[in-house]
Amino acid sequence: MAESRAVGQRVRRIDAPQKLTGQERFTGDLRVPGLLIARPVTSPYAHARVRSIDSSTALDVPGVVRVLTSDDLSIARDAAGAPVKAPIASGEAVYAGQFVALVLAETDAAAQDGVAAVEVDYEPLPVVATLDEGLDPNAPHIRETRQQANEEEAAMHNADAAVQAEENDEFVAPNVSNSVHFARGDVAAGFAAADEIVELTVESLTVHQGYLEPQVCLVDIEPLGDLTVYTSTQAAFYCRTRVAETVGMPTQRVNVVPMPVGGGFGGKFVLIEPMVAAAALAVGRPVLLRYSRMDDFLAGNPAPDCRITVKLGATKAGEITALESRLVFDTGSSGGSPLQIAAILLGGYYRFPNLELRGHEVLTNKPGAGAYRAPGAQQATFAIESAVDELARKLGFDPLEFRLRNCAVEGDERPNGGAWPRIGLKECLEALKDHPAWREREGARAKGRGVGIAVGGWPGGIEPATAVCRLDSNGKLTVVLGSVDLTGTNTAFAQIAAETFNMTADDIAVTTAPTDAAPFAGGTGGSKITYTVGKAVQRAAEDALKQILAVASEALEASTDDLELVDGAVRVRGVPGSAISLKDIASRTMGFAARNEPVYGTGSTAIRESAPGFAAHLVEVEVDDVTGETRPVRYVAVQDVGFAINPAEVEAQIHGGVVQGLGWALYEGMVYDSDGQLLTATLMDYALPRAEMAPAIETVLVEVPSEHGAYGAKGIGEPPAIPGAAAVANAIRDLTGARLTSLPIRPEQVARALWDATSAPAAD
Amino acid sequence: MAESRAVGQRVRRIDAPQKLTGQERFTGDLRVPGLLIARPVTSPYAHARVRSIDSSTALDVPGVVRVLTSDDLSIARDAAGAPVKAPIASGEAVYAGQFVALVLAETDAAAQDGVAAVEVDYEPLPVVATLDEGLDPNAPHIRETRQQANEEEAAMHNADAAVQAEENDEFVAPNVSNSVHFARGDVAAGFAAADEIVELTVESLTVHQGYLEPQVCLVDIEPLGDLTVYTSTQAAFYCRTRVAETVGMPTQRVNVVPMPVGGGFGGKFVLIEPMVAAAALAVGRPVLLRYSRMDDFLAGNPAPDCRITVKLGATKAGEITALESRLVFDTGSSGGSPLQIAAILLGGYYRFPNLELRGHEVLTNKPGAGAYRAPGAQQATFAIESAVDELARKLGFDPLEFRLRNCAVEGDERPNGGAWPRIGLKECLEALKDHPAWREREGARAKGRGVGIAVGGWPGGIEPATAVCRLDSNGKLTVVLGSVDLTGTNTAFAQIAAETFNMTADDIAVTTAPTDAAPFAGGTGGSKITYTVGKAVQRAAEDALKQILAVASEALEASTDDLELVDGAVRVRGVPGSAISLKDIASRTMGFAARNEPVYGTGSTAIRESAPGFAAHLVEVEVDDVTGETRPVRYVAVQDVGFAINPAEVEAQIHGGVVQGLGWALYEGMVYDSDGQLLTATLMDYALPRAEMAPAIETVLVEVPSEHGAYGAKGIGEPPAIPGAAAVANAIRDLTGARLTSLPIRPEQVARALWDATSAPAAD
Repeated sequence: MAESRAVGQRVRRIDAPQKLTGQERFTGDLRVPGLLIARPVTSPYAHARVRSIDSSTALDVPGVVRVLTSDDLSIARDAAGAPVKAPIASGEAVYAGQFVALVLAETDAAAQDGVAAVEVDYEPLPVVATLDEGLDPNAPHIRETRQQANEEEAAMHNADAAVQAEENDEFVAPNVSNSVHFARGDVAAGFAAADEIVELTVESLTVHQGYLEPQVCLVDIEPLGDLTVYTSTQAAFYCRTRVAETVGMPTQRVNVVPMPVGGGFGGKFVLIEPMVAAAALAVGRPVLLRYSRMDDFLAGNPAPDCRITVKLGATKAGEITALESRLVFDTGSSGGSPLQIAAILLGGYYRFPNLELRGHEVLTNKPGAGAYRAPGAQQATFAIESAVDELARKLGFDPLEFRLRNCAVEGDERPNGGAWPRIGLKECLEALKDHPAWREREGARAKGRGVGIAVGGWPGGIEPATAVCRLDSNGKLTVVLGSVDLTGTNTAFAQIAAETFNMTADDIAVTTAPTDAAPFAGGTGGSKITYTVGKAVQRAAEDALKQILAVASEALEASTDDLELVDGAVRVRGVPGSAISLKDIASRTMGFAARNEPVYGTGSTAIRESAPGFAAHLVEVEVDDVTGETRPVRYVAVQDVGFAINPAEVEAQIHGGVVQGLGWALYEGMVYDSDGQLLTATLMDYALPRAEMAPAIETVLVEVPSEHGAYGAKGIGEPPAIPGAAAVANAIRDLTGARLTSLPIRPEQVARALWDATSAPAAD
Repeated sequence: MAESRAVGQRVRRIDAPQKLTGQERFTGDLRVPGLLIARPVTSPYAHARVRSIDSSTALDVPGVVRVLTSDDLSIARDAAGAPVKAPIASGEAVYAGQFVALVLAETDAAAQDGVAAVEVDYEPLPVVATLDEGLDPNAPHIRETRQQANEEEAAMHNADAAVQAEENDEFVAPNVSNSVHFARGDVAAGFAAADEIVELTVESLTVHQGYLEPQVCLVDIEPLGDLTVYTSTQAAFYCRTRVAETVGMPTQRVNVVPMPVGGGFGGKFVLIEPMVAAAALAVGRPVLLRYSRMDDFLAGNPAPDCRITVKLGATKAGEITALESRLVFDTGSSGGSPLQIAAILLGGYYRFPNLELRGHEVLTNKPGAGAYRAPGAQQATFAIESAVDELARKLGFDPLEFRLRNCAVEGDERPNGGAWPRIGLKECLEALKDHPAWREREGARAKGRGVGIAVGGWPGGIEPATAVCRLDSNGKLTVVLGSVDLTGTNTAFAQIAAETFNMTADDIAVTTAPTDAAPFAGGTGGSKITYTVGKAVQRAAEDALKQILAVASEALEASTDDLELVDGAVRVRGVPGSAISLKDIASRTMGFAARNEPVYGTGSTAIRESAPGFAAHLVEVEVDDVTGETRPVRYVAVQDVGFAINPAEVEAQIHGGVVQGLGWALYEGMVYDSDGQLLTATLMDYALPRAEMAPAIETVLVEVPSEHGAYGAKGIGEPPAIPGAAAVANAIRDLTGARLTSLPIRPEQVARALWDATSAPAAD
């Protein structure tokens, strides 16, 4: 790529100027005529029957227009009448903070006053507050109405289902909403062949995505009741489908305008949009709902807490012989935890000749779990990478060598049966092995630091996409897309298109269009936008170039084979002066009586093979042996990115992921009490890592090109957020001998472990 | 087309429900945060130097934010410093009503008060008020600054230009801004060969497009100063280019959102948008300018007044031998009258073996002329069709037979050299000849009615276009376009796409997208949208169908040749049960891990041959011989439409055109006094035809298919507005013997002519 003017270059993000200068216009900044502000009335109980809602006083508050309950909303419901996938209760609140009504008012202040004036009569019900309660076969269902429905159904089926489940060796409890089971080989024989076995259980708390901009959505009512949904979403088309289905309108009558997203990290696929749409329809006026920070903690869709037990055996020679694991995810009040992907990753980083993985997802009276950048991967990786590290130590193996010896490569089988395609895990480990931070780790240790490493990987998503590349009247090009730009993808797309035209990214405009006009693209998540849409952009640009050359060929009376595009003009190779500018080509294709078709390149992809991305991280930590405070002081993030379209963006992505990983490792956790009350509903209580908590981060980009991505690019979003917690735990272990297994690793835990260690022999 | 489910059907217009129920959202209904309302300070003089503008009192008006003059606007200027194509004066007002300043205020009322408080010191200058003054070689230039520039230039060139023009037999006067000259054969010889010669001079006044919704534009300021232009425009992409060029920004930083248009008729290509954009940039806030009705009369862009002399000769056998004509158009204060097209049409309807056409466009101190549905055609047709009619009568020929004998057919030459392609003029005349209204014309005459006929034609515009046809998640299709729907074109496009999919138009959504995302299409004008974009839609639908069948082929394991699309599903011919719905196809092409590319059909056109459209009209009139009032009582409009995609829409178009033609014939005219002051600046003074003035209108659709348009369709917008004035004049002549030559034909003129006729022998 030595001659590249665009891809591989460090290019400033297209969206940087308006964001850095505070000029970006977010959803919450919008106003439309007739707008009503919505504020929620929230349940103070984690589980309660809503006996009655008295809105009369609230409606007397000047400016309050309506108080809506779920009965007023024309939205999809489940068999028990509860709204599907909308954070509003119907007769029964199933988590503390769930909405039981929406007050719509002319102003925010009036809405707030209205909320205070709504009187709700609750009857508290038993709460399923913890993962263990969720597993309890004797616990009530988290939803009383569902429990009744279940019992009726069970009676109808004569309890056949439970009997059958038992015969199949399945675990049955009222709140188990999903189970997975992957097995391969003979686990018992595998452990029998092991010289050393490690078994440990890790836990992690609920973690919030921590985006700067809370959930926000404005739904405008168009003529005839059509809806325009302005929202901070990662997935415009998915949101459109969900809103249309929820309110029961044809898809074509809903237009989603994807607004700039102030952070998503998986938490902004769809949450409040269908409910706000239904509210707008109910009153026939536009409605804006802006979550407060507390709303977002109480009624968001955070990453689930979980508990994972890992048993791992290996021979003295360092060959892993067996893996057994049990995973339990607390999915909150609605299913959809990343149980399956966690299990697949847990059993996927290494060659496990024998493995058995069992997992369960349980419902509790908490907000429903959502996706979080690399959903399930943080938890699974913390478990397996703690165990692998511990096993290497027990065997006396260098932890990096032990990983290199066992790590998965192309063709190795994943727990769910499919083989890995070409992946860069081994290359990342080898790059880390060569890195000064690893080679000189003894020097760090001599300075009183622990050195921990961990790997992490993400299978990578796939989803079809179309992109458009259009020549504009001034001879510049515009790429039109349906994908939301969370992390600079539009900048990368400008680079990809520019490369085709032998230009710089500055010459390319990129439009993310509303769903009524955009070419389809999937949601921005799963590390798939650059991988899938990028190739579509490349094809669209190539298609546009072909059309441009055809027009130039006619104008210059030369074969397209003899043409080249240089400095914004098509010229005949070797014939100076025989050239036509892109602006002149534009004028031949647009304008009254112009004679050539407009240049409108399109490209689509339906890549059927994902491009998994791997990372190997190293962290040096210092631990205050009195307070137990852990301080990461050096961080090396090695990642296989396939090809870095924009190295500056890739590194920024890695930096952000590393800091989120440190949040998981050391700071972040949503704590609920035994009544299901959230104790950490503000940023005073919930600790997000701040800039000064982040160590210097060194990035190493490994480029094992993907077969399908543009210029070899792979998804890069998820992997850097994965290994952090395990790397930190392994570094603490390296320094102190203590194996910390509960995330986040708070100073008091470390202090306790150090204290315990002084009264017992060290583990190695 | 017997099996068609879509094209050729009478389909309700997509936009009818929101318009008929008053729910449509027009530009003037929009509000955005921080919006300022603009109101103009207008010149009371048709020509004046602006010595000074004192805004101090206006700025004291509560709510007034800024008073902008052209000096504050960063817009393109000509050599003399005057803003190009913006209705705001720079130092010199050149028509009464021209803006000299814009008051920007928080409310409309404050802006109005501000306008009243701005003090402008004018120095009146000589006014060029009429066409004759415009022709005067000794008149001053309408623009003092230009006059100075011209004089300087003339001095520099040593008056060479004038000398050369004189040698070329060109007419030179300071305010002549354009001239045309077409000649063919030997005109003198032609007249010598004629047995009868008619010479007459017709005149018409300035006519306003008379749209319901006055000019309106809202420009919003996006982050970094990018512009979003919400406007009632017929031509989004053209408007974008013009705004960008005017304010000096890259095209990509201007996004034009084409709003529903409350009538355009040629008057809404671009007028106020660049100025409003410059105003918004000057204050850094969004600005809305809504013309009042009076603003629109004073500072719009109406159809120009003109004078046309026609001399026409023919043999006794009814063969036209020669045509000579002189056309003068008063283009107001900026060039761009339809002089050339008028000349081409005037000399194009018939085979003229010898012709000479000379035309001039003159500047006057009036608003600049704009396009009006069939620009130039009304005036030219009134002239030639009056002369042809008169000549036929003088020769004792049936006027219809005379026209049939001489009318142009495919291959006949036009004044500008090109030959007519296949046209339906003759077919229209033949259809009219067969119509009961013509066959039984003696019956009408016996009832005291005059029967007049006239033809009219429009060359038809061409402009490249691209269209998109996309499969949505619910299995329905969306057509995405850049063309503005003035008259139901989006409904026709839904029909065209539906036809390809064997559906009805209800199954197709149509989006007119903003310029930042839309495929290119030209402005909606020149009767070219259905003709050019329609074919692009057809191709896009066919492309989408091909993609759909490819997915179905894989899913059904059948060759695409064996597949058919019926009732929203692709099925294998002759294999009942082997089918896949479009919704299932959609799910295979969109969604996480879907395996096929999204269905995104595109189609482009660059049709190089226009599809001229012709009409033949018949009107029966009654004339009150005391008051002179003319009342049309029956109207037949025959038109070659190529193929009527939606006959109901086509007929509605024809109805509207006929009534506009009657406006030209009998009612409409903007009257200026000798100081250039408009005397008809309200709808109390300017007479638009009202519903009760319209006779019953019978339409006859002739279908001479075009080679290029979808299903043979041609442009149909312009032709029905063309023949009306001539048909009415010919009917009055038929009834009374009086030849009325000045539009509109007011009762007092008719009464005068009748009075004159009683004191002189009748003309035939």
